[in-house]
Amino acid sequence: MTRTRRAGRRLGSTRDGLPDWLRAQAQWAPGRTALVAGSRRYTFEELDRRARLAARQLASLGLGAGARAAVVMRRGAGFVTAVHALTRIGAIAIPLNLRLASEELAWQLADARPDVVLSDATTAAVAAAAARGFPGLPHAIADEAAGHGGFETGGMFAGLLEAEVALRDRIDLARVQGTIYTSATSGRPKGVLLTYGNHWWSAIGSALRLGLRPDDRWLAPLPLWHVGGLAIIWRSVIYGIPLIVHDAFDPAAANHEIDTGEVTVVSVVSTMLNRMLADRGGRPFPRSLRCVLLGGGPILPALLDTCARLGVPVAPTYGLTETASQVATLAPGDRARRPGAAGQALLHTTVRIDGGGRPADPGTIGEILVAGPTVMRGYAGRSEATAQALRGGWLHTGDVGYLDDEGCLYVVDRRDDMIITGGENVYPAEVEAVLCEHPAVADAGVVAVPDPHWGQAVAAVLVPRAHTPPTVEEIRVFCEGRLARYKLPRHVWFTDALPRSGGGKLLRRSIREWVAGRASAPPAGAASAAAGAHETSANRVSAG
Amino acid sequence: MTRTRRAGRRLGSTRDGLPDWLRAQAQWAPGRTALVAGSRRYTFEELDRRARLAARQLASLGLGAGARAAVVMRRGAGFVTAVHALTRIGAIAIPLNLRLASEELAWQLADARPDVVLSDATTAAVAAAAARGFPGLPHAIADEAAGHGGFETGGMFAGLLEAEVALRDRIDLARVQGTIYTSATSGRPKGVLLTYGNHWWSAIGSALRLGLRPDDRWLAPLPLWHVGGLAIIWRSVIYGIPLIVHDAFDPAAANHEIDTGEVTVVSVVSTMLNRMLADRGGRPFPRSLRCVLLGGGPILPALLDTCARLGVPVAPTYGLTETASQVATLAPGDRARRPGAAGQALLHTTVRIDGGGRPADPGTIGEILVAGPTVMRGYAGRSEATAQALRGGWLHTGDVGYLDDEGCLYVVDRRDDMIITGGENVYPAEVEAVLCEHPAVADAGVVAVPDPHWGQAVAAVLVPRAHTPPTVEEIRVFCEGRLARYKLPRHVWFTDALPRSGGGKLLRRSIREWVAGRASAPPAGAASAAAGAHETSANRVSAG
Repeated sequence: MTRTRRAGRRLGSTRDGLPDWLRAQAQWAPGRTALVAGSRRYTFEELDRRARLAARQLASLGLGAGARAAVVMRRGAGFVTAVHALTRIGAIAIPLNLRLASEELAWQLADARPDVVLSDATTAAVAAAAARGFPGLPHAIADEAAGHGGFETGGMFAGLLEAEVALRDRIDLARVQGTIYTSATSGRPKGVLLTYGNHWWSAIGSALRLGLRPDDRWLAPLPLWHVGGLAIIWRSVIYGIPLIVHDAFDPAAANHEIDTGEVTVVSVVSTMLNRMLADRGGRPFPRSLRCVLLGGGPILPALLDTCARLGVPVAPTYGLTETASQVATLAPGDRARRPGAAGQALLHTTVRIDGGGRPADPGTIGEILVAGPTVMRGYAGRSEATAQALRGGWLHTGDVGYLDDEGCLYVVDRRDDMIITGGENVYPAEVEAVLCEHPAVADAGVVAVPDPHWGQAVAAVLVPRAHTPPTVEEIRVFCEGRLARYKLPRHVWFTDALPRSGGGKLLRRSIREWVAGRASAPPAGAASAAAGAHETSANRVSAG
Repeated sequence: MTRTRRAGRRLGSTRDGLPDWLRAQAQWAPGRTALVAGSRRYTFEELDRRARLAARQLASLGLGAGARAAVVMRRGAGFVTAVHALTRIGAIAIPLNLRLASEELAWQLADARPDVVLSDATTAAVAAAAARGFPGLPHAIADEAAGHGGFETGGMFAGLLEAEVALRDRIDLARVQGTIYTSATSGRPKGVLLTYGNHWWSAIGSALRLGLRPDDRWLAPLPLWHVGGLAIIWRSVIYGIPLIVHDAFDPAAANHEIDTGEVTVVSVVSTMLNRMLADRGGRPFPRSLRCVLLGGGPILPALLDTCARLGVPVAPTYGLTETASQVATLAPGDRARRPGAAGQALLHTTVRIDGGGRPADPGTIGEILVAGPTVMRGYAGRSEATAQALRGGWLHTGDVGYLDDEGCLYVVDRRDDMIITGGENVYPAEVEAVLCEHPAVADAGVVAVPDPHWGQAVAAVLVPRAHTPPTVEEIRVFCEGRLARYKLPRHVWFTDALPRSGGGKLLRRSIREWVAGRASAPPAGAASAAAGAHETSANRVSAG
């Protein structure tokens, strides 16, 4: 009895994996559109064939199960193909943010220790520069000739032969699919280990909340190297629907796609939606658009008001890299469209507000904890940070919010210190570390200030070493090669000393309050803030 | 590292269970309709409250984790509530087929060894009669006063107090939810152990194939004690959509519901759909009906033709109790609407045609094997049958079919001997065993004959003991108390001897061929077949 029950237990489980999703779609609906990138359309059969070709080429480099591949590619067919190809050989995808500065990329390469770097014609130079410090690291360049996302004949990577290897045709949900770098509360970014199961449950939870239609078409103007974009790659093959990628966000192009391309769902952050609405000039979205999934940070009341007025089918969502995107989502038909309302947790996700070791009462604000099958495996190579983040069986998000009586989650504040500017996360510690490398800077505190265009903007308060502080321009030039553009301080103030706790911890809340007083009365030069930075007179920031 | 990786592995999995689905829906959408039964409508909040009340009452009988509850209830709110209540106390539901004869019910009770029998006002007498041989077995009767499916005040079960127990609020996918009796290839029915995971993956697989809309409403004119009906109870709470149950199948009522009740999906078997189409007299279904899920046996070409002509959005499906319903489904938009085409396997299900220990080539007919997370745990208390059915990591369905080049499954023949009449499975061996108990019957062979109304009908070929065979009427009366009505032979022939193999195995294929010749030229009395049976002159059935 025991033996046969075990057999049944195994057979009726997912331990032996699920059929490869892309392969299954390619077999059943070979001619259905899988991907639209630029002017090119790829069927599931084409995408599957390309993934197999690319997988055999990567295998010729000796890459196999558990190998790590840094993906430094633009958002196009090459990126999507590479992700699926890596699945076929059991390798781990490590997509890197193309907006990072060269030094940041190099740091992430050193941290990720990849076995190969994948790039394409437009990113080869960036990838090569970042990999300069890693002699011998193979670099495979996708040949997307003539801008067609092509590799029509032969393989995807120029000059690589195809190895005669058996490719995987099943997906083990317990395996790690990718490492996604996320900004960290302190110091450098951390690589989030996401499994196929994390992606699968995320896709299913999303479908159960938002519905799923055979004619769905999902537009991703978001970067694919962020979890919000990567998740759509997986939804496309799990749902069997087209993914439409744009190489860069362009509000007019996104609007055109929605108006003419029968887009039913689009994933955006507030800044994007604002710009798209501005571009539309009051013209409503077509009825074919059934869902605008709006994530990536706080949503301003004005945006919700505009959406309500124009009948935009907006679905606010709260998500994290560590949960393979959505934690809670408010579907277009749901009630409670108030600022901060992120809806109920997805069906199989549990949200708890930490009330000092036990669940807080409804309405009580506390740290947002998350449990469920979308929670990451951990941080790559960081056992302590992993143990800390996952302690007690809950993912500690660091974000602050509350649940109402009906289980609707309201996000009051993102991780105490995190800045979300144009949908990109910026952790102050990272910017502060760079600022402090400047020879004339003794101390630095970085906080968010509200920004009508980007939601939030990065502001720095600096303590100069000498009596003559460096100029704002000097600071800007110094940071430019070292930080991604979106991380550059847009506002700079100088002061005598920064508020710190008895233990020496920077009290950013106090800095925020001090800065808030300054920012509401912009000093001369505020108009040029978008160009870089401005300065005010030196003042001591009080700790009160 | 090892310790924290394990923590992450656990947290990012489903090992600690998922939030109870009904509870989650009740919390988020308390006022949304969960269930429509007769003239009564229940919100998710009401259904959840009733399930909790009923669970506490059942707990007062000492029932807890692993307890077995035979559910002998009509298809209504009581049945649905009982199923969810059992989940809350971790008990196993064993729904029994109300169409079974008293002796059959008694046999299943003996086989299932329940700790309690649940019934309602309309089934209490039947349940009590079946339980007569089990003194001391508790019998809880749901109080659905005034036909309202009520239990408005107090608990669901008359006279039971509520125990003060902690109810489960999570669902462990690995746990057994229910035991569903299915007809067996030889001898008596077997109880199929289905886990919550089986139901979950079935619901998800179905949604990925058929789509899922927030405004879906699923009509179940099917018995809830069959897997086809039970599956809709789970889909309702997983999807958060209303389940509409009809106490008995009535084509006019089903049509009325679809015409006025905004039904979007209905599950039927061929006989039901035929009768509904006849009742409509050519009037098309409203556009709100987006899917007619058609399962439970072979679909005649004439029915597919009619559906195509009237634009019925039919989705043929092949499913089994052992796979928690659907294995393969052809969505309304898919191609390949040929007789036997059941579509591609659900995304996470793998179908293989047995080609002598390896996969058969496309187009080659063989036994249909199934693997994936919907495959049953096993047969209750039957380790040998379980090992046999699940040998080699595949569920051996006993059904015969082939896959085309694109992975579309065609079912050529249901389990060699199985008869499907009006969507009910009848195994010849069970009917033969009853027939052979008749003192004047020396041998019996039971096979299917095509039937324009029921798809197939039960036909018996008998070898009488004496030279004077029993009358058909005698046979009919003898069987009536011993077999469910749908199992009664509708055609009876007599012969001198039945074809058997050298090992004594009944050669039913030969009997079918012999009968086919007889049935195509109906003898006198064929017109009265629906009333019971008719006879022909004695003939020897050849084994050729």
